[in-house]
Amino acid sequence: MNLFDMSLDKNPANYVSLSPLTFLKRAADVYPNKIACIHGEQSITWAETYLRCLKLASALSKRGIKKGDTVSAMMPNIPAMFELHFAVPMLGAVLHTINTRLDIKSVAFQLDHAESKAIFIDGEFASVMATAVKEAEVSPFVVDVDDLTFNSGSFIGEIEYEALIHEGEGDFTWSLPDDEWQSITLNYTSGTTGNPKGVVYHHRGAYLNALSNIVTWDMGSHPVYLWTLPMFHCNGWCFPWSVAASVGTNVCLRNVLPKTVFKLIKSEKVNHFCAAPTVLTMLINTPEKHKQGIEHDVKVMTAGAAPPAAVIQAMEEMGFGVTHVYGLTETYGPCTVCAWHEEWDDLKADEQAVLRARQGVRSTMLEDLMVADPETLEPMPKDGVSMGEVFMRGNNVMKGYLKNPSASEEAFKGGWFHSGDLAVWHEDGYIDIKDRSKDIIISGGENISTLEVESTLYRHPAVLEAAVVAKRDEVWGEKPCAFVTLKDDGAVVEKDIIAFCRENLAHYKVPKHVVFGELPKTSTGKIQKFVLRERADEI
Amino acid sequence: MNLFDMSLDKNPANYVSLSPLTFLKRAADVYPNKIACIHGEQSITWAETYLRCLKLASALSKRGIKKGDTVSAMMPNIPAMFELHFAVPMLGAVLHTINTRLDIKSVAFQLDHAESKAIFIDGEFASVMATAVKEAEVSPFVVDVDDLTFNSGSFIGEIEYEALIHEGEGDFTWSLPDDEWQSITLNYTSGTTGNPKGVVYHHRGAYLNALSNIVTWDMGSHPVYLWTLPMFHCNGWCFPWSVAASVGTNVCLRNVLPKTVFKLIKSEKVNHFCAAPTVLTMLINTPEKHKQGIEHDVKVMTAGAAPPAAVIQAMEEMGFGVTHVYGLTETYGPCTVCAWHEEWDDLKADEQAVLRARQGVRSTMLEDLMVADPETLEPMPKDGVSMGEVFMRGNNVMKGYLKNPSASEEAFKGGWFHSGDLAVWHEDGYIDIKDRSKDIIISGGENISTLEVESTLYRHPAVLEAAVVAKRDEVWGEKPCAFVTLKDDGAVVEKDIIAFCRENLAHYKVPKHVVFGELPKTSTGKIQKFVLRERADEI
Repeated sequence: MNLFDMSLDKNPANYVSLSPLTFLKRAADVYPNKIACIHGEQSITWAETYLRCLKLASALSKRGIKKGDTVSAMMPNIPAMFELHFAVPMLGAVLHTINTRLDIKSVAFQLDHAESKAIFIDGEFASVMATAVKEAEVSPFVVDVDDLTFNSGSFIGEIEYEALIHEGEGDFTWSLPDDEWQSITLNYTSGTTGNPKGVVYHHRGAYLNALSNIVTWDMGSHPVYLWTLPMFHCNGWCFPWSVAASVGTNVCLRNVLPKTVFKLIKSEKVNHFCAAPTVLTMLINTPEKHKQGIEHDVKVMTAGAAPPAAVIQAMEEMGFGVTHVYGLTETYGPCTVCAWHEEWDDLKADEQAVLRARQGVRSTMLEDLMVADPETLEPMPKDGVSMGEVFMRGNNVMKGYLKNPSASEEAFKGGWFHSGDLAVWHEDGYIDIKDRSKDIIISGGENISTLEVESTLYRHPAVLEAAVVAKRDEVWGEKPCAFVTLKDDGAVVEKDIIAFCRENLAHYKVPKHVVFGELPKTSTGKIQKFVLRERADEI
Repeated sequence: MNLFDMSLDKNPANYVSLSPLTFLKRAADVYPNKIACIHGEQSITWAETYLRCLKLASALSKRGIKKGDTVSAMMPNIPAMFELHFAVPMLGAVLHTINTRLDIKSVAFQLDHAESKAIFIDGEFASVMATAVKEAEVSPFVVDVDDLTFNSGSFIGEIEYEALIHEGEGDFTWSLPDDEWQSITLNYTSGTTGNPKGVVYHHRGAYLNALSNIVTWDMGSHPVYLWTLPMFHCNGWCFPWSVAASVGTNVCLRNVLPKTVFKLIKSEKVNHFCAAPTVLTMLINTPEKHKQGIEHDVKVMTAGAAPPAAVIQAMEEMGFGVTHVYGLTETYGPCTVCAWHEEWDDLKADEQAVLRARQGVRSTMLEDLMVADPETLEPMPKDGVSMGEVFMRGNNVMKGYLKNPSASEEAFKGGWFHSGDLAVWHEDGYIDIKDRSKDIIISGGENISTLEVESTLYRHPAVLEAAVVAKRDEVWGEKPCAFVTLKDDGAVVEKDIIAFCRENLAHYKVPKHVVFGELPKTSTGKIQKFVLRERADEI
């Protein structure tokens, strides 16, 4: 015991659990009249939001919801969804957000696995959810959410959201968790192998990642944040809590329609939004007349799949500042950032886009990041060529998978989180994701990154979307097979695309086949490569 | 035990101690060639800074410095002082920074109380320190710091700083603390009642407050930060760690000369600095020719004594964005901020300055702030009139006072930190300090304990009674003014008393005026300092 260990203990004055709930209270205290949420004609201040959350927490408490209970939500990005991110954890309960595009069976699985005690359902999803709740073994308390901007919803619950809030007391007493390790939310992975896994976040991580967003993205105070990214994705990458911490304004959005996105950017002076590369592609291909008239700076953070350099370049040319980040559900969303260097400003636009397409370095609050051998955990050389698995360590890595200790143990083997993504490490320490481990193509003993082939395809002017998978090949073991959606049907044919690839890629990487048509996607908008793999093998 | 308590434990992948040391490593990893420190002709990159810190930690370790040891520093704001903020905690040791204006006796007291094992001394302070080290009972390992921009220093140590660094290994292995509650630094208060108290900070608080600075002040990435605020004051309000976290540039400064400040703002494109109101007054009164030519935005954070609204207004008129903050050594420096409201932009300049002169609301990472009855801890009404004591709670409140459990206990009574400052609470929740704890004098940003000056006066053989109060001073903000009753009227004159004080006190603590006569007292015999304050101001 040294000098500094004596009589210098924690006490209520000098130690408080880290929790993002503190941000809401501060926003309401300091900026009570500032607008927290804009939704259609509706504006809700921070004081009102806090009061509504208190009443909601109080009402749920009266209905028996308590610490450690799961409260589910099937909702688009509307104010109620934002409020649940605070009201549920106020009780020590855990918010379980459900992907609105999920099928009945998957929803029922999640409700049972999460042992859901209550569920909030937006009218749009009532019919699907009625069946899902019936199929599930649990019997959660069902609350209908009647969003005023959606008119054709139906209702299946015991009470409507506003009526429930009305049941609560505005002077409800709550406190921060005694332990910042307390669980705050539950997000299921898409489950590419077997059943989906329930990723558990804690108050400490949510607090730190909310701040990491602000610091890493230079958000500043009072951002106007547009909800293009679903809140059911890793809790909107923790941005509900970031917006509260920076006392910004949430501009809500039920559906990501490019026309609406541009309209809101102009009318609400939106200056920050997050979006998957597919959304950026939609924005890029929106008619000019909708895009015109943006006179302020707008920053977009993108992740979810490696964005082709061409997409980034097109966004930058439209005047949007693009920050490329990368992460997984298990890392509270983005945990790396392609941190910019001033000296890159002097490079040509296409060279900049290539640099910006890398996944980059650890964000401010991730503690460690490496590309290493998946078995030995030996770091790979930083040579831009040697491929290894991406590993992370830090306070924004999940607590673990719910009721799945063996999966958790495997994910944390060796004291690092195993991402399952393959990357190279450039000389400057920036990582560059080449593939999911399971997506990589091995052709004649050579690794082919499907991402590299895809980003080449994206540079072809006729291509709207592209995906590349392995096709079994008698000679080579596997060969790349491309699936392409064209901007205009029939504009080019297979041999045009192949010729373009031969000009721009090593020949062994050129797809043997190009199939045109719509791409199959998951509920989260990710291309379903396993479907394409089956199709490829049938050719 | 609920669902979320099972098999979701901490492990090395998902739990890492919060420590500001991580910021240095990240800065060196991601921006190795960016300039970390500018000092005269010298520029040091982040990679070099990290390497120098590793070698310094290694060299200190070879010299026997280990976890829990105190390492002292008597230095101005030069790169070595910045480096010590990382190298010392890398060893688990505790950095003890000493006010460079302290007298020998106070320094010797601190060295002994802190049980100092090593001390770094800038050449300018060698002669004072030679005596202090001799007077102290401890025998620290003494390192001379030979700053290239200072030519007339002398040296008293065993080795020079650069030679010590040379002794260390660049591949020194260090790790973040196992426990984020581990002590990181030690800062002594001026000691209003008896001996100064050693305020202990921990890694968790330093990490969080460093980020709080960035978020609260909207610093953004890569600030150019000028070191007008001494690093020996609450570790420069944690800004050494904030600048590392935001990968900015430290512009070092030995002495705060207004001409130099303006020169550096222009030549280095400084955009952030912190300063006491007295420094702002000096800047305001600098000849126009030095001020001209600043073409970029500059933000200044001010605290240390309530800045007069006129000073804030004058700074704003000069084009500097002023953020007014408030805090104490016990709160890692500033913990409240006068958070701005857009609607105040429409007010007249003098009205704005009045609002900006308030100490404001809790900064992002302070958890709770209140103005309350000092005895009952009942919050005062928010009426702008009822005065109470300021109380804080949060992770940026100190661990406690070193080797002084009774003082710690008193400071934390009732689960709140008792600031000893008196304030009113305005209707909007903004606090407005009306009086510092009743005795303290703040002169040129330095705290002067009236008790210390009084006890010196009492040691003069001709003095019967003495009381010291603050007198407003145009240059220094406040200066001590002494009221003395002599044993024999006319035995000594003002200049005798002043000469005696100069022999026994640091020069900045010497009273500017000495008034002879009877002292006003309450019926219970207590000296009425408020009466003396009025008299002092009439002189």
